[in-house]
Amino acid sequence: MRRFLIALFAGIAAMATGAFASETFKSEHYPLRVVTVTEGLDHPWGLAFLPDGRFLVTEREGDMRIVSADGRKMRPLSGVPRVYNSGQGGLLDVVLDPGFGRNRVIYFSYAEPSGGRAGTAVARAMLDAPNNRLHDVQVIFRQQPKSGGGRHFGSRIVVARDGNLFITTGDRGERERVQDTSINRGQVVRIKPDGAVPADNPFVGRAGHRPEIWSYGHRNPQGAALHPETGALWTVEHGAAGGDEINRPLAGRNYGWPVISYGRHYSGGRIGIGTHGEGMEQPVFYWDPSIAPSGLTFYGGDKFPAWRGNLLVGALKYQLVSRLILDGDKVVGEERILDGIDERIRDVRQGPDGYVYLLTDSSDGAILRLEPGN
Amino acid sequence: MRRFLIALFAGIAAMATGAFASETFKSEHYPLRVVTVTEGLDHPWGLAFLPDGRFLVTEREGDMRIVSADGRKMRPLSGVPRVYNSGQGGLLDVVLDPGFGRNRVIYFSYAEPSGGRAGTAVARAMLDAPNNRLHDVQVIFRQQPKSGGGRHFGSRIVVARDGNLFITTGDRGERERVQDTSINRGQVVRIKPDGAVPADNPFVGRAGHRPEIWSYGHRNPQGAALHPETGALWTVEHGAAGGDEINRPLAGRNYGWPVISYGRHYSGGRIGIGTHGEGMEQPVFYWDPSIAPSGLTFYGGDKFPAWRGNLLVGALKYQLVSRLILDGDKVVGEERILDGIDERIRDVRQGPDGYVYLLTDSSDGAILRLEPGN
Repeated sequence: MRRFLIALFAGIAAMATGAFASETFKSEHYPLRVVTVTEGLDHPWGLAFLPDGRFLVTEREGDMRIVSADGRKMRPLSGVPRVYNSGQGGLLDVVLDPGFGRNRVIYFSYAEPSGGRAGTAVARAMLDAPNNRLHDVQVIFRQQPKSGGGRHFGSRIVVARDGNLFITTGDRGERERVQDTSINRGQVVRIKPDGAVPADNPFVGRAGHRPEIWSYGHRNPQGAALHPETGALWTVEHGAAGGDEINRPLAGRNYGWPVISYGRHYSGGRIGIGTHGEGMEQPVFYWDPSIAPSGLTFYGGDKFPAWRGNLLVGALKYQLVSRLILDGDKVVGEERILDGIDERIRDVRQGPDGYVYLLTDSSDGAILRLEPGN
Repeated sequence: MRRFLIALFAGIAAMATGAFASETFKSEHYPLRVVTVTEGLDHPWGLAFLPDGRFLVTEREGDMRIVSADGRKMRPLSGVPRVYNSGQGGLLDVVLDPGFGRNRVIYFSYAEPSGGRAGTAVARAMLDAPNNRLHDVQVIFRQQPKSGGGRHFGSRIVVARDGNLFITTGDRGERERVQDTSINRGQVVRIKPDGAVPADNPFVGRAGHRPEIWSYGHRNPQGAALHPETGALWTVEHGAAGGDEINRPLAGRNYGWPVISYGRHYSGGRIGIGTHGEGMEQPVFYWDPSIAPSGLTFYGGDKFPAWRGNLLVGALKYQLVSRLILDGDKVVGEERILDGIDERIRDVRQGPDGYVYLLTDSSDGAILRLEPGN
C-alpha cells in the first residue's frame, strides 16, 4: 500500500510541470487551460460572483470594482472607505450576502487606519451597481486594539449556514499577544450580519474575554471556506517557516500560536514549546516547507468531476495551487497544480459555472479562469 | 507529506478493531453498528433492493427468495432454473432492470449444468412477487464452452448507463485458455438486455473472436459497479496469492491473466512474465497479501457522508470490508473496516436508504445492515 502511494506522489510530482507562456499545464486528471479574464488589477485580493455573471473584485490599494464577464473593468466603485494600504494592509476580502439578489448587501474586510495605526475591520454595505457605488456602509467589526506596522491582517469572510459571519484576523505581527483573549490578535471571530455578537458564541458572558471570539491562537489566516457536507469552517493560515496550517476552527478552541507550531523562526530557531501542547488543537495539515497559502475553496462543480470534495489552496510563495484530497477531515494526498505559472496566487474560488477562478497578486494582477482541456 | 500519510494509516490500523459479539466496530469516521436483518440463508451471494423495501436474495445452493424489510424470509421463488451447485458454482448474482417498477424484469447469473460440466450463464426473467415465482425465464448468455470442475465462475451483472449488461466471468480454473478470445474464459462480456450483441462491441466482425467479449485476461472477477461520475465499469477480481486486483475494464483491452500478475502461485513460484506486459493493462489497485474480494460498490449515500466517492469491497479471506479512497481513478488510501467480524463478506451494496448492506458467506448466512453510531 505504501509502495503504491509513493509511486502515485512521484507521478504527480513528475507531471506537475508547464509554462505560463503556453497557458496550458499538465495535471493528474486534466490538462489545465488558464484563461485570462482580465488583467491590470492592482494586487487583487478578494473575488465575488454577481448573479448577472459579472465579478466584484477588491484591489489591495483600496479600490473595489465590477468586471464584466468578458473582462471589461468598470471604474472603481465610490463609497469604499479609506484603507490603510501599507505593507500587507489594504482592501481585502469581499463576499455577497446570501440574499444579495434581493437586498444587494455585501461584506468586505480591510485594514482600517486610525492615527497612524491600523486594524482589520469588516463593513457591510449595499451595492448600487447601476450607479457604480456602495451606500449605507456600516462597520460591523473592528479588531481591537489597532497597532502599528503592516503585517498580518488576515482576512477572509465566510457566511455560515446559520447566517452568522466568520472573519479571520491576523496577529498583526504581535505574537506575544495572541494567547490573550481580552484583545483581538490572530482569531476567527463570529458575528451576526449586523455586527451583534451571537448569544451562543463560546466566550459570551466570560469576563476577560472578547465575546466575538470564535477560536484563537491563529497567526495569519488568509483562506476560509465551509465544508460542503458538514458546514464546518475550514481555514488556511500562514505559519512561520515550515508551519503553514489548515485548521478546522471549533468554538472556543486554541490553535496554539505561538506556543505550538510546526514552523521555525526564519533564523532556524524553534518556536514555543514544540508541535503539541495541552489544551491546544492540532492542524488538519501543514506544509513544510511553507507555500504561503492564501485563498481556499472546496471544489464541488461539474467541470472537474475528479476534484469533487477536494480542497484548493492558492500559494503566494511557490506560485501554484495545492489540490488536497480528503478522507473525511483528513488530508490523504496533495497534487500541486499550475506549478511554473510564475504568478503569486492570492485567491481561489469556484465560480457558479463550475470553473475555478484565481486572482494573481501583482501590480498587474489578473482574474484567471481554469478550464479543463488544452 | 509521506510522514503524514504513514501516520494516517497507522492510525487506521490501530482503530480497526472490534468484536462481533458487541456488533459495533470502530472506524476512522464513524462507529459502525452491524444490524442483522435476517439470518439462516444458505450461502447468500447476490442482493437486490425491491422498490417496496423488500430484498431479493440468491442463495448459492440454488434458491432465490424475497426477504421482508423486517427480515422475514419468504419460501424460495419457483421458476428458478436448476443450477450446478458444487464448489464455487451455484446461483450467483441478481440485479433489477432499471425499468423494474414497470416491467418486473430481473437478471441473474448462475453456474449452468450440462452433462456433468458447467459454465456461467445469465438469465432474464419476470418476477411475479405476489405469486412468489419467476416466469418467462430466458437464458441470454452462456459461457462457451462449459467445462468440468467447480472453480471460478465469476460473476456479477451490472446494467450500464446505455442499458447494456456487463457480466463478469471467471477462468474456470483453466488459466491456459484465458488469452484465447475464441472462447469465454475470464472475461467481461457485454450484451443487450435481450442477449443480442451490441454492434459497437470491440470484437464484432473480427474473425476468431467471440463478439460478446468486452475485455479479457481476467481471472475471477466477483465484484462490479459503475463509477458514479464517469459511468465506467470497475471490477474486482480474485488473483493468485498477492494478486487480487481492481480493474477498469475498457473495450477490447487485455488485463493480462495469466501472462502478467502481481500474484504468485500458492507454492510461491512466479506467474507468467511478471507484472507488466506489452499490450496488457495494469490494475487500478492490487492487494498483497490477498483479501479474496467479492462484491464492490461505490458509496454515494447520505448516511456516511465522509465515505462519498469511496469504493467498498467485501473480503472473504480477511473477513472485513475494504474502504478505498479515490483521487479520480487512483486509489490513494485504504481503511479496513469490520476487521474482526468473523464472517466472510460475499456482497456489498448500498441500499436505497443510504445504508450499506452486506451478505455473509456461510451456511447460516445473513443480510447485515451497516449503520453509523453505537
